[in-house]
Amino acid sequence: MKININRQRLLKALNIVNVAIGQKSPDPIYINFKFVMNDEYLEITGSNGDLTICSKISIQDKNSENYNITSYEKGATLISSKYLIEIIRGLDSEFVTIEVIDDVIAQISDKQSNFKLNSMPIEEYPDLDLAIEGTTVTFKANELKKIIFQTAFAASNKEVRPVLTALNVKSFNNQMEFTATDSFRLSKKIFNIETTDFEVNIPVRTLNEVSKMLENSDVKMIVSQRKVVFEFDDTIIYSRLINGDFPKISRMIPDAYPYVLQVSAEMFSAAIARVSLLAIERENIVKLSITPDSLEISSKSDQIGSANETISTFRYAGERFDISFNVNYVLDAIKATQSDDVILSFAGEMSAFRITAPNDNSIIQIITPVRSYY
Amino acid sequence: MKININRQRLLKALNIVNVAIGQKSPDPIYINFKFVMNDEYLEITGSNGDLTICSKISIQDKNSENYNITSYEKGATLISSKYLIEIIRGLDSEFVTIEVIDDVIAQISDKQSNFKLNSMPIEEYPDLDLAIEGTTVTFKANELKKIIFQTAFAASNKEVRPVLTALNVKSFNNQMEFTATDSFRLSKKIFNIETTDFEVNIPVRTLNEVSKMLENSDVKMIVSQRKVVFEFDDTIIYSRLINGDFPKISRMIPDAYPYVLQVSAEMFSAAIARVSLLAIERENIVKLSITPDSLEISSKSDQIGSANETISTFRYAGERFDISFNVNYVLDAIKATQSDDVILSFAGEMSAFRITAPNDNSIIQIITPVRSYY
Repeated sequence: MKININRQRLLKALNIVNVAIGQKSPDPIYINFKFVMNDEYLEITGSNGDLTICSKISIQDKNSENYNITSYEKGATLISSKYLIEIIRGLDSEFVTIEVIDDVIAQISDKQSNFKLNSMPIEEYPDLDLAIEGTTVTFKANELKKIIFQTAFAASNKEVRPVLTALNVKSFNNQMEFTATDSFRLSKKIFNIETTDFEVNIPVRTLNEVSKMLENSDVKMIVSQRKVVFEFDDTIIYSRLINGDFPKISRMIPDAYPYVLQVSAEMFSAAIARVSLLAIERENIVKLSITPDSLEISSKSDQIGSANETISTFRYAGERFDISFNVNYVLDAIKATQSDDVILSFAGEMSAFRITAPNDNSIIQIITPVRSYY
Repeated sequence: MKININRQRLLKALNIVNVAIGQKSPDPIYINFKFVMNDEYLEITGSNGDLTICSKISIQDKNSENYNITSYEKGATLISSKYLIEIIRGLDSEFVTIEVIDDVIAQISDKQSNFKLNSMPIEEYPDLDLAIEGTTVTFKANELKKIIFQTAFAASNKEVRPVLTALNVKSFNNQMEFTATDSFRLSKKIFNIETTDFEVNIPVRTLNEVSKMLENSDVKMIVSQRKVVFEFDDTIIYSRLINGDFPKISRMIPDAYPYVLQVSAEMFSAAIARVSLLAIERENIVKLSITPDSLEISSKSDQIGSANETISTFRYAGERFDISFNVNYVLDAIKATQSDDVILSFAGEMSAFRITAPNDNSIIQIITPVRSYY
């Protein structure tokens, strides 16, 4: 294999593929990029066994018609990802040459620099299941990014119950739901889309990485029994699914809400964040006290002191009501609504409460309160 | 004490004073700001016992003639620094009121927010030596910042030999020297300034903090036997000195340099940084090989591979010469010269070498090489 390739274009592909390698893997073979040059494109693959990313660089660039690769000899090799990426980033010429010598050395060079990295034949690389089959759903990049932004934060980051580190993606009767919960709070996005029925648990980590890579093009999500595939631009991402039953969340959501507050998202967020400054010892738990005439947020600590905020602009339907909650959960949920005003609907002091946006039924946030301390 | 004060102006002073509190201290009383309001200004003090910072906020602003403090009652208190600074940062009104109630509560409030922090009478605060006496040297802010930038990095960050964590500042016959060394490399700044003779070891940490705070005004450095004081704008910084004899460094510096290389700082830095990518296992040690016709930098590792850079534009006086060095030391030294070209002067393969700038005799960098590995 020998290629003369545009350095920036190569670096972009390496950075994308490296996301799969950056994550821990038990098998040291996975520290390598797999390079395969054929007569149409260079394909670079990285994997940790669970997540695999392939990125193609065509000889002639599809958008600009410039040449990404100005000369080549077909071939393939495995190159250490860490050193290759640092070398390609550190060089400053427009084009670099990568040449495999005797199957055991990859030489990276330009006019001034010459690096020889130990390399390996691709026969050493594991066989990965890269078949693409199953139900295909197509999203606009911005739509999928928004869905992930609005839900993924509510998933658990603890591996104790692996299924809670996934987003549950369910399609039924052309309605699709993305749901995440860490069992203390829940975020659900609902929208209509034509597709066959399915239900899978996709690792949140995969979705967050996909979201970061998406630019403007459409993205295909292909769901099968054992894996999910995302396909966009010149990139294909393969991820295992998470086994196990996602919790039945309907029991967590109250039926009726006799206390309903509408308030500015920004003003309410700023007020609870300030009050929580004195609630650090209490895991950021503050108390909300509402009457038809007053909206007050407070916290109290014998050690430090007390904090009190009043908000004068709000709408409230209901009787006098008190509830205590973790400020971080409420801040996250308000941010995810992406709305100027938010509606907080309460069922009772010890029942889960709901946060929604006035003009958007697609996003629902549920948070469990905590017992008041004072 | 009761003051109504401009929030941004207060926050600026708190951030400056907090630098002294942020550093570790054995005595918990030092977590507090000391507030003293008199008929001219509010004085805020923070300390950890070794480093003390006082900042004054005058009632009427000296620059803009706006009022920093619109109303006040004289008095004094100790307030927990951590919570006060977060509260003042978190509020969003232009002015805030701070009122001491019954000597044990500091109430911070604006229209919407009300915080009550437990506070203490100032009698609890230690007596600090804040006398200002000794030899005064005046710098322009930019001059002192440059001196610190060019030397401080070469000090040790290990407390094993405390005197190496200081900058040695020596004045003799109206010539002043700032010297830092971690015993592997050394940086020295020399310039003329009229003052009496003295020699002190100033903690590098103090100087780095002073450098960050300096804006445009002049800064006075007042040196006495036990402490150094920096005075600028409305701020006074008191720092203990470090005891002990600073190493005699003249023995470290060779007399004659038979091998002299002049090269572009940017090109040479980029080349050695790239070669060091493959020298991670070897503590970033690379080899420089010079002849009158060629300049080559290389590194080699059985595990990873080899790297080789050639630079074609350079000037060299001397015979064929090889030397190995730690890339990080050389990169730091080149950066400190602040010069387009640098001169590397070598005395021998195992002798310390010198890095200087072609048109600036005020800054000298000395680095000890390492034995070649191959």
